[in-house]
Parts: sequence; structure tokens; C-alpha cells
Amino acid sequence: MPHESRLTLALRALLHARRVAALGTLGDDGNPFVSMVPYAMEPSLGCLVIHVSGLAAHTGNLQARPNVSVLVMQAEVQGEPVHALPRVTLDGLARTLEAGTPEWEVCRAAYVESFPEAEFMTQLGDFRFVAIALNGARQVAGFGAARSIDEEEVRRALGPAGP
Amino acid sequence: MPHESRLTLALRALLHARRVAALGTLGDDGNPFVSMVPYAMEPSLGCLVIHVSGLAAHTGNLQARPNVSVLVMQAEVQGEPVHALPRVTLDGLARTLEAGTPEWEVCRAAYVESFPEAEFMTQLGDFRFVAIALNGARQVAGFGAARSIDEEEVRRALGPAGP
Repeated sequence: MPHESRLTLALRALLHARRVAALGTLGDDGNPFVSMVPYAMEPSLGCLVIHVSGLAAHTGNLQARPNVSVLVMQAEVQGEPVHALPRVTLDGLARTLEAGTPEWEVCRAAYVESFPEAEFMTQLGDFRFVAIALNGARQVAGFGAARSIDEEEVRRALGPAGP
Repeated sequence: MPHESRLTLALRALLHARRVAALGTLGDDGNPFVSMVPYAMEPSLGCLVIHVSGLAAHTGNLQARPNVSVLVMQAEVQGEPVHALPRVTLDGLARTLEAGTPEWEVCRAAYVESFPEAEFMTQLGDFRFVAIALNGARQVAGFGAARSIDEEEVRRALGPAGP
């Protein structure tokens, strides 16, 4: 594994520190729609895992139009400026997982590990797991520190740091 | 002014407590794109005010396709569950303001009042103010507490509480 840059380390730290993201989907009306989603990470599949209700607008949107955008932002700190807050926009392709498949098992396990308090929701019939395969990203790590990231690098940031 | 419900009070508190939002725009490729924007509020015009660089992807997107979606989320609290975090998705129409017009003056003043530390950026030539007129919203105030909000109510939440 190559030596990781400061920006890559910052990206990994951001993705692991946060639990919710802003999911952008495309509505039936052709307009973007942004909603909050708790997310887990599954490095071996290179994806985020979300758990969505069949009743929610984003679920219909991502099933009909799987290209999605996911923003993860560092927390605001009271009294400190916000314009240079580190954040990343992940470019992804969403796929609803079929219950009981090996992929579903792996993604469910990752999700429940991140959110044990939400395990009861996985018993509810109208919820399903969705894997968002990451294809690239746009990272802003501060003023003048923006860059585009390819698939390989963004997926590596989902896992633990190398040796 | 009618008596305000608990959900309306919660919406006003949320919009006033936060400083950054997740802006969803539609890219040239037909896919959604989500980015972070600091926002101010201008109740008299019923809009959010953002300040964007001509170099940023969201700026080109919203100028070409002005229907945008804006998510404001309550902060995560470490050690507490996130699934029921209060949040609101605002449905808006973006319009780039012409410098020196009365609307631009009002919006610029609202923005600089919220972000005095960013005033220097308003001197930079490639930045411009954009008003996002709010047409409605979808508020999630907790488990089982979701509702749609019309234009009048969402705009009222931008201003101070009534008597």
C-alpha cells in the first residue's frame, strides 16, 4: 500500500467519525431531493450501507434512478467559522440487496455493528438494505484544499489505515 | 398569526440553530450532486441566502437547473442514537442575484450578519449571492413525526416567533 497523504488520512477520519450523511437522489419530477441517512461502511465491497423504508421518497428515487450523491460533513463547532469545514461528496451507485444473499448478510452485519440500537428496525418488513458502491469523490479538506478522488482511493478510505 | 404547533417551533429552532446545509443540485450529467453550503435566512423575501463561487460545480448546476433541495440536520450527539435526529428538507428555487440591486443588498446584509468572518469573500469577483426561494418542505421531527409543510409555513419559520 502506498504511503497515504494527509488528505487521505483526513478523509478516512471524516468517514469514520460521522454516522449520518446527506443523500441526494433524483425525484420522479426530475428534481434533486436530499434526505438524511445513517450509514455504515463495508470496505470489502467498497460501499456504504444504508437501511431505508419502502415508504420514504428516497427509496423510490434510488430504485428508479440509482446514481446518487452522498455528502458527509464534519460537525459544526459553536463559535468557530464553518466555511472551511472538511467534507466530502461521494459519487455512488445504489443497489437494493435481496434479503438472505451473502452480500445482504455482510451489509446487514456492518450496519448492525454500527447501529446496534437499530437492529429492531431490520425486522420490519418495509425496510431494506441498500449498498451504495462508491465510484469517486470530491473532497474539500479546508480552504484551497479540494481534490477529486478516484474509486480505488475512496474505497480504501472505508477501511482501516494501512501499516 | 395562528398559534404555532410544537413542530413549527421545532422547525424554527432547527433552522436558526444550524449554519450549514446540504445543497442538492442537478448536474449536467443528469445526476444529483450534494455539497455543503453555509446559509443565511431572509424572512422578508422568504428565502435562504447562499454565497457561491463561480468555480464550484453547484453554481453551474443551479444556474442551469434552479430547482434545488436543501437539507438541514440537527447535530449528531456522541453516544446518542441518530435515526430520529430532527431534520428538514427544503424545496427551493435558486436565483442568482444581480450585484447592486435592492434584493442583492438585503440578501448580502443578511449573509454578512450571519457570517461576518466571510465578508472578505464578498469582495472576490468570482463569488455571487444566490437566493433560494422556499416553496415547501418535508420535516422529520423524530420517529413517527414527519409532515409536509407548505410555502407559507416554511417561510414563517425563517423569521422570529410570533407574539
